[in-house]
Amino acid sequence: MEVIHIRTTGKSCMIDITGQVREIIAAGGMQNGIAVVFAPHTTAGITINENADPDVRADILMKLGRMVPDEADYRHSEGNSPAHVKALLTGASVSVIVSESRLLLGTWQGIYFCEYDGPRDRKVYVELIERRISHA
Amino acid sequence: MEVIHIRTTGKSCMIDITGQVREIIAAGGMQNGIAVVFAPHTTAGITINENADPDVRADILMKLGRMVPDEADYRHSEGNSPAHVKALLTGASVSVIVSESRLLLGTWQGIYFCEYDGPRDRKVYVELIERRISHA
Amino acid sequence: MEVIHIRTTGKSCMIDITGQVREIIAAGGMQNGIAVVFAPHTTAGITINENADPDVRADILMKLGRMVPDEADYRHSEGNSPAHVKALLTGASVSVIVSESRLLLGTWQGIYFCEYDGPRDRKVYVELIERRISHA
Repeated sequence: MEVIHIRTTGKSCMIDITGQVREIIAAGGMQNGIAVVFAPHTTAGITINENADPDVRADILMKLGRMVPDEADYRHSEGNSPAHVKALLTGASVSVIVSESRLLLGTWQGIYFCEYDGPRDRKVYVELIERRISHA
Repeated sequence: MEVIHIRTTGKSCMIDITGQVREIIAAGGMQNGIAVVFAPHTTAGITINENADPDVRADILMKLGRMVPDEADYRHSEGNSPAHVKALLTGASVSVIVSESRLLLGTWQGIYFCEYDGPRDRKVYVELIERRISHA
Repeated sequence: MEVIHIRTTGKSCMIDITGQVREIIAAGGMQNGIAVVFAPHTTAGITINENADPDVRADILMKLGRMVPDEADYRHSEGNSPAHVKALLTGASVSVIVSESRLLLGTWQGIYFCEYDGPRDRKVYVELIERRISHA
């Protein structure tokens, strides 16, 4: 298991961690299998989305903010209940396929750490699981 | 594959299954790998969220109820379409990392079975997948 | 890694790919493990939901359309920001358990490719990861 360390700089932001995941895959020497990319936090998540136009990330965060607004009637006293809801909607992890030592993303896909209650020091765990059978 | 049996007691609730997942990992004797925790239901899901203040779960279920209200114009005659939408938003499974025989969750993370159309008898499947290569 | 090719026919639709995933599992000869089903696209996703009444899928797509409407103030110039948000909500992949060569879904569960910006030619990647330890 490898760890990526992140310092988020805004209240809500999406940080591209594709490069760090690729480095861990290369260092691990795995040829075929999956990488599980996991956020050990409850007000953040991991997703896969467009890596080209940064306006897409801005639109996603804007829309999530409207879907889960800072309403007045949450019970949780810390005031970050919207971030917990966004974490559920996003998911804590993604599983990506590694084929012939290559991270198999689509052309426009990047792996993003989604911060919903920053700025904070955050971590991402990456575990590589090798395929066993040769079914190809 | 191991099975956790759950009896949900409300229409919507989040039930902590972290302890049962830990027991399955301990009994399995896996040192390094992942555990896939899967709900074989279409009006429920599995998520990871805060294990401390129960108000967080109340806020999450309240907010999901507002995002996916019991509107009058769903087609599906059973009346549980909102539960199916919440199942999509939540996801049917989580993958968690096991490192040196230890379930690698963040300090505030617990694994939850999310019931959206209870009360019902429910099941959770847990499969352990061991890492093969030593990339650490 | 195996590839499923799909031609989506509507702007938004959910296409049942359970049969193709089962065929890949059968051809792979894996007895116990998981299958990771991954969409290499940023305006689509993979989910598990009801396989019986097609009205459930219609309700899900209707409800997602209301949650993420085509508002006027997205920044992204391609006009498909709602599809990117729906991709985040859905998730790019699912992990399903294979037990004694059988795909372990619930009675009412099917695996669906969710198109949010069609019609397009799409792909789904499937990787089989075998369990190593006998923990049962």
